[in-house]
Amino acid sequence: MMNEDTICAISTAPGAGGIAVIRVSGPEAISISNAVFYPRKAGKTLLEQPAYTISYGSIRKGDELIDDVLVSLFRAPHSFTGEDTVEITCHGSVYIQQQIMQLLIEKGCRSALPGEYTQRAFLNGKMDLSQAEAVADLIASTSAGMHKLALNQMRGGFSQELTHLRTQLLNFTSLIELELDFSEEEVEFADRTGLTQLASDIEQLIKKLADSFSVGNAVKNGIPVAIIGETNAGKSTLLNLLVGEEKAIVSDIHGTTRDVIEDTISLNGVTFRFIDTAGIRETTHIIESMGIERTYQKLRQAAMVLWAIDITSPEEQIKALGEKIWPETKDKKIILVFNKSDLLSRRELEEKQQLLSGIEADRIYISAKQKSNTDQLKNYLIKAAALPEISSQDVIVTNVRHYEALLKAHQAIERVIQGLQQNISGDFLSQDIRECMHYLGEITGQINNDEILGNIFAKFCIGK
Amino acid sequence: MMNEDTICAISTAPGAGGIAVIRVSGPEAISISNAVFYPRKAGKTLLEQPAYTISYGSIRKGDELIDDVLVSLFRAPHSFTGEDTVEITCHGSVYIQQQIMQLLIEKGCRSALPGEYTQRAFLNGKMDLSQAEAVADLIASTSAGMHKLALNQMRGGFSQELTHLRTQLLNFTSLIELELDFSEEEVEFADRTGLTQLASDIEQLIKKLADSFSVGNAVKNGIPVAIIGETNAGKSTLLNLLVGEEKAIVSDIHGTTRDVIEDTISLNGVTFRFIDTAGIRETTHIIESMGIERTYQKLRQAAMVLWAIDITSPEEQIKALGEKIWPETKDKKIILVFNKSDLLSRRELEEKQQLLSGIEADRIYISAKQKSNTDQLKNYLIKAAALPEISSQDVIVTNVRHYEALLKAHQAIERVIQGLQQNISGDFLSQDIRECMHYLGEITGQINNDEILGNIFAKFCIGK
Repeated sequence: MMNEDTICAISTAPGAGGIAVIRVSGPEAISISNAVFYPRKAGKTLLEQPAYTISYGSIRKGDELIDDVLVSLFRAPHSFTGEDTVEITCHGSVYIQQQIMQLLIEKGCRSALPGEYTQRAFLNGKMDLSQAEAVADLIASTSAGMHKLALNQMRGGFSQELTHLRTQLLNFTSLIELELDFSEEEVEFADRTGLTQLASDIEQLIKKLADSFSVGNAVKNGIPVAIIGETNAGKSTLLNLLVGEEKAIVSDIHGTTRDVIEDTISLNGVTFRFIDTAGIRETTHIIESMGIERTYQKLRQAAMVLWAIDITSPEEQIKALGEKIWPETKDKKIILVFNKSDLLSRRELEEKQQLLSGIEADRIYISAKQKSNTDQLKNYLIKAAALPEISSQDVIVTNVRHYEALLKAHQAIERVIQGLQQNISGDFLSQDIRECMHYLGEITGQINNDEILGNIFAKFCIGK
Repeated sequence: MMNEDTICAISTAPGAGGIAVIRVSGPEAISISNAVFYPRKAGKTLLEQPAYTISYGSIRKGDELIDDVLVSLFRAPHSFTGEDTVEITCHGSVYIQQQIMQLLIEKGCRSALPGEYTQRAFLNGKMDLSQAEAVADLIASTSAGMHKLALNQMRGGFSQELTHLRTQLLNFTSLIELELDFSEEEVEFADRTGLTQLASDIEQLIKKLADSFSVGNAVKNGIPVAIIGETNAGKSTLLNLLVGEEKAIVSDIHGTTRDVIEDTISLNGVTFRFIDTAGIRETTHIIESMGIERTYQKLRQAAMVLWAIDITSPEEQIKALGEKIWPETKDKKIILVFNKSDLLSRRELEEKQQLLSGIEADRIYISAKQKSNTDQLKNYLIKAAALPEISSQDVIVTNVRHYEALLKAHQAIERVIQGLQQNISGDFLSQDIRECMHYLGEITGQINNDEILGNIFAKFCIGK
């Protein structure tokens, strides 16, 4: 599936640097480059230059010298895109970069769309869709964990797992469909117990992959932590305390597929993303208001909850919010953060602690004002996060598109298992198996449509 | 003059991009790179790889994969630095760039200082000092004019001119010194009239180069324009009018050797740099104050002066400032900008114009408020600037260091001419000629010291 036009883009980071690289890819990449390139050694031509070589010379626009450059040559299919590719390394002035781009466009190139090189690599069969998406993740990766996951995915770790799954599903459906062909003879080629076992194995594999998303997403976007509580319980102080000193370390993490994250800290290599629950203040008074609903939505997005409670009146606060909070946080790690311990005497504190001992939840007593016990709180967070060690062999889903496809595939395979239990006919089973395969195929791009592709590659940077 | 250590740096613009290039240069460049590079084709090694070729493979830190990369190989002396050089093209994530840098440093590289690659190119005789400086100018160039001058200088245009000069001076001094050797015999080998002619030719050449600095500096830093006048004469409005709409086009121009420039506009490809003369307001009242001195200092830096005058009371204003301003602006282009023409009837305006006809200076009548005649003002500026068309062959001095060296060389050659006229002895003449050569040699770096070199390369970006 070769593209007919030749594209060009500045592939290095924008702005001035020592050097910059302009990438030209497509059927005319070499001839267009050759038309503006004047080799240092007279008589040399890029057209006859072997692949994987570098030529020194200058780029000229007619008589006008634009820059002295190095030109790297790649020939189809042995390039990133799978097409003829020329990489022009020029001096890193913005002016020169623009001049060379302009010249290439005059000579017949088209300015590349975001991600178009990777898209071409995908369309030319150099990588599947999940690998292409990993390229963007790799470029955006800012932590060791994310880097490892993206690199493994780019090199095909996830793709292999999916191919393995599809092979199993194909075996499965073959058995079923073979049976259908002989349906009049009422033969059961496929032993139903064996089929149930196979379906269950596949279901387990898909579930394992889908489940890995909680880890993958935590690595990629940070572990979502909601801090709830009444404002004067010290919620804001707590947030400032946690984020304040650490924020500068993490700085802005701009991903390729998500919005700017605010209030992120990195503890022990684990990223925590604090979710704003400013709405909680109203909810203590008008419990049925819209506010509480918004807060609960945010609670649901969180993996961990820090509930800030004023230690001088803990019973009242727990009573006011508890009824609504406990059910929402059943499957989450919740830590009760009793604040303002500095306002109580040691004896009063012990009494309160005694009083609260009946509540089954992790807790910590701090004074955000005096910054006491905040290290302990951080250790708590790290322990509660407890991300597994990721090896570069692990297959972990980090992409929400993949996760959603896996969930749909999982629903389909569950219908297959149910169908087997209810002994429904093979053609219905086959339909669900094919649906399961369809969703897995969407991940690697074996099944794709222009809209999906457009969405994916639009999020890339230009030049990749 | 080979360096003993091997340096590495990220050479592309900082930040995330599609790809990034890390440059390794020095005697161990190939062996260190080879130690972390795992070629896709087993058995291949960078050590035996021919120069000017590209290898595909991965960078690993022990078992841990860091990235899939392309490695370009250059062998001494056929590289930018003149040393063995490896360029590693990796994915453009900041994390990956840092990991590879860290690994190279662990394996024995040193992180390169700003401009160290170009410094090595200079030390290894790949370019002279003025060419090396042009590399930084080229990277910083943001306009066609600056780009052309930097490129010409980098390719040795200026160096050739200087070599030519030095050859002439060498001939000159040889003749003089030959005479000295035979001084007891009172022979005059060198015909004094011929010598005077030669010295005068050299003086002309040096003067031409030094004079070109006003053009070169205008191209590089913009033409300095002072806007003076009382505040309510419309100075600020005028500045806003000129800069306001145009400022966004030029944006910040960060040079390598100068501070941030504020209030710059580009008209017809010519850059104008407006000099803040806020001090003028006090000076109308306390004429002998510090303020006026500061304003006059700024006036002296300007090549052009716009004097904003309220047309409703022009005589008073010209009288108040004129006595001090006229002497300071003798050698500058001054334009009287009579503002607030909207406040006068046509007849009143004509009367004023009649009244002012005695003053010998270019003038323009505008209404900054109504934005009338501002296009005419811009055309005036462009005409007054009248920079010559620059061809890529022109040798034009853009560097203040070169300019200062040329001034000193010029003083030396003028002493030679004087000496010849006064018929002073050959050994004194020779001393001045050698001094002239010394200063020219400082430009190309034939004469250099560590301090000069340190100053020059410290202004480069890292990775170049």
